[in-house]
Amino acid sequence: MKIIRKSDRVSLRRRVEQGTEEQRKTVQTIIGDVKAQGDKAVLNYTERFDGVKIDQYKVSPQEFEEAYEALDGEFVEILQEAATNIRKFHEKQRPASWFDASEDGTILGQKITAIEAAGVYVPGGTAAYPSSVFMNVIPAQVAGVEKIVMVTPPGKDGKVPDGVLLAAHILGVEDVYKVGGAQAIAALAYGTESVPAVDKITGPGNVFVALAKREVFGDVDIDMIAGPSEIAILADDTALASEVAADLLSQAEHDARSSSVLVTTSQQLAEQVQQQVKDQLEELPRAEIARKSVEDYGMILLCETWGEAITTVNEIAPEHLEIVTDDPFQHLGKIKNAGAIFLGPYSSEPVGDYFAGPNHVLPTNGTARFSSPLNVDDFLKKSSVISYSSEALKKHGDKIARFARLEGLEAHAKAIDTRKERWK
Amino acid sequence: MKIIRKSDRVSLRRRVEQGTEEQRKTVQTIIGDVKAQGDKAVLNYTERFDGVKIDQYKVSPQEFEEAYEALDGEFVEILQEAATNIRKFHEKQRPASWFDASEDGTILGQKITAIEAAGVYVPGGTAAYPSSVFMNVIPAQVAGVEKIVMVTPPGKDGKVPDGVLLAAHILGVEDVYKVGGAQAIAALAYGTESVPAVDKITGPGNVFVALAKREVFGDVDIDMIAGPSEIAILADDTALASEVAADLLSQAEHDARSSSVLVTTSQQLAEQVQQQVKDQLEELPRAEIARKSVEDYGMILLCETWGEAITTVNEIAPEHLEIVTDDPFQHLGKIKNAGAIFLGPYSSEPVGDYFAGPNHVLPTNGTARFSSPLNVDDFLKKSSVISYSSEALKKHGDKIARFARLEGLEAHAKAIDTRKERWK
Repeated sequence: MKIIRKSDRVSLRRRVEQGTEEQRKTVQTIIGDVKAQGDKAVLNYTERFDGVKIDQYKVSPQEFEEAYEALDGEFVEILQEAATNIRKFHEKQRPASWFDASEDGTILGQKITAIEAAGVYVPGGTAAYPSSVFMNVIPAQVAGVEKIVMVTPPGKDGKVPDGVLLAAHILGVEDVYKVGGAQAIAALAYGTESVPAVDKITGPGNVFVALAKREVFGDVDIDMIAGPSEIAILADDTALASEVAADLLSQAEHDARSSSVLVTTSQQLAEQVQQQVKDQLEELPRAEIARKSVEDYGMILLCETWGEAITTVNEIAPEHLEIVTDDPFQHLGKIKNAGAIFLGPYSSEPVGDYFAGPNHVLPTNGTARFSSPLNVDDFLKKSSVISYSSEALKKHGDKIARFARLEGLEAHAKAIDTRKERWK
Repeated sequence: MKIIRKSDRVSLRRRVEQGTEEQRKTVQTIIGDVKAQGDKAVLNYTERFDGVKIDQYKVSPQEFEEAYEALDGEFVEILQEAATNIRKFHEKQRPASWFDASEDGTILGQKITAIEAAGVYVPGGTAAYPSSVFMNVIPAQVAGVEKIVMVTPPGKDGKVPDGVLLAAHILGVEDVYKVGGAQAIAALAYGTESVPAVDKITGPGNVFVALAKREVFGDVDIDMIAGPSEIAILADDTALASEVAADLLSQAEHDARSSSVLVTTSQQLAEQVQQQVKDQLEELPRAEIARKSVEDYGMILLCETWGEAITTVNEIAPEHLEIVTDDPFQHLGKIKNAGAIFLGPYSSEPVGDYFAGPNHVLPTNGTARFSSPLNVDDFLKKSSVISYSSEALKKHGDKIARFARLEGLEAHAKAIDTRKERWK
């Protein structure tokens, strides 16, 4: 891991997979086929891409039962406790409808309504995470979404990992379909004989899933297109190098394109962390991935002043930010851009991945400048409410009509004028 | 305007302009040029597309002054009153950061931060609306966005309409640039020597603007891609046909692809409105546009039951919904999908376009199923805050590590385990 003096201007590389023109065309074809042929197309593509022939791709009650029995009781309890924590946190995000009643009889307000149906994509293979099920489904449930549909690609044996089914089961999600890739996104967006159409699709996936989400966007809503994971650690010389290094590596093991960055003013910490990363890498089962990530996208940024360190963090706009100093709360107000902020030495990033409660679906690739963690608001929408009174229209009608005429919209003005009949 | 019995299944046509492959390539070229050459490319494209050669495209204080003097004082007052109403409504949308402190010392929370810089696109020509300036800028200001940059295409005379400049002036927006089209979106997304780069771009535009917004999405955030305007009016036989017709036509005059729909259970109202639309059309200066809109996308849907009428409205998910009955509040809870809901006979839709306070930037084309009016939240983002305590980590650390190992992420587990040294 290189130590770089921040006065050398550092540019952080963008790492979102855009997909090729050919991949985009493939995805368009798949979507078209699923729209036209429904289940038949879905099952054909599953056979072609996942190498497994399935007749019935809705997960059966028996399959849920088997998953439940395959995992030991203690682990089931840990999952349940995590789900409770995550639900508790997200319940605090729930906004209320409100209204404001004026003395002239006018009522203005904002009505909050849950979207009717949400689709969750859970990736397959080695990245099949029960925690992803929790983080995508719980905010939708807390929002009040009535219909939640989950899709996840089957393995070669036609099965879905036990942990994923168990997580769905714990949350009471019954509509789980063994389908992945662009065909899964198309099925969610437009519906098939088996899969109900939804209004919004969330959850990460490979490049085909990302491209398919972009294609259906507009017909349904989507969450952000996620890039590889990131962490920035802002630390001074009160931080323990072994802990800082371990946390950097916990991001690096996700993906060879993950990015782990230490931002510090302490030369000593910089050097110690550099050594620790090297040593700890030796002991990791996913060392190959983590080493590539650290070499290609890892950095130790040594800043002259603490102010420069803060500015650097805001420029990076990291998905995860740890602040490891003896007074981390003092710096919170200066942090403008970060998906999740972990304060102090006990707030190791994995605490937030699984258990503490906040969502682990976070903005990557600098998008924390303008995006938020997945949250309850993502499954709600607002409607403005306007109940104008006779008195208010009498008082303000002419102004409104005049405004309309200035904008050249005579029919708008006339719609106001015609009401005048009522109080003549 | 045709009367259609709802039992004949009606499908509402999608009307969002997708753009051609050729237009998409043109837009990509423009964006590439502006990225590479900055102001030079901007001014070249302005000369080519807007037919005017400009040297200095930032609006000068003198130009603001001239706009102010060109409009009469009474109109300035109407604009100021509208701005006050809009600000008052949006101030009620502002959420607060919150945190939750557990007895074990853990603090979990959500920090709300405004995005740093926002760009507003204001369309030119006949669609140059001061109200658009208000509706896009005020939510950003209320959110606390520090830098607001406005772009709008110049006319052949190199000028921007007085009303637009006056609206910007009233709000204290000083960074206004005379540039439109894809080149304006590129300048906002990536910055030039003159135009500061922003984090989010809002505001409607033609197909080139829409395509450019799609292209830069991800590098910056964008608002929704707006389609033509819509209104649905849900009315029973207490509604006055003349008022209903006038309100339908106020949407129809916007654009030949606007859609105006009456949903009713009253045969009598249906027939009267049909006649009124015909009669009132004769008197409109924009009759040609309105007639085409009514013929192509207008409908009177006659439902058997009130329940069917409500279902129909939710299927349409209209941008604007008027409920004209003698007890409109009773139906509010059943409305799932609508951008803005206008209740009762005095709440003519233009009341909301200019003056009442709620935003007029609303989800079109059925996207009210999952989107909201432009609002203060659109200019804010959330960061999760996690301060785990020593006690909490001691209690839950092993569970978190076990969860990580089940997901195959050893470095995550080790990041927790390494903290154990602290309490050995």
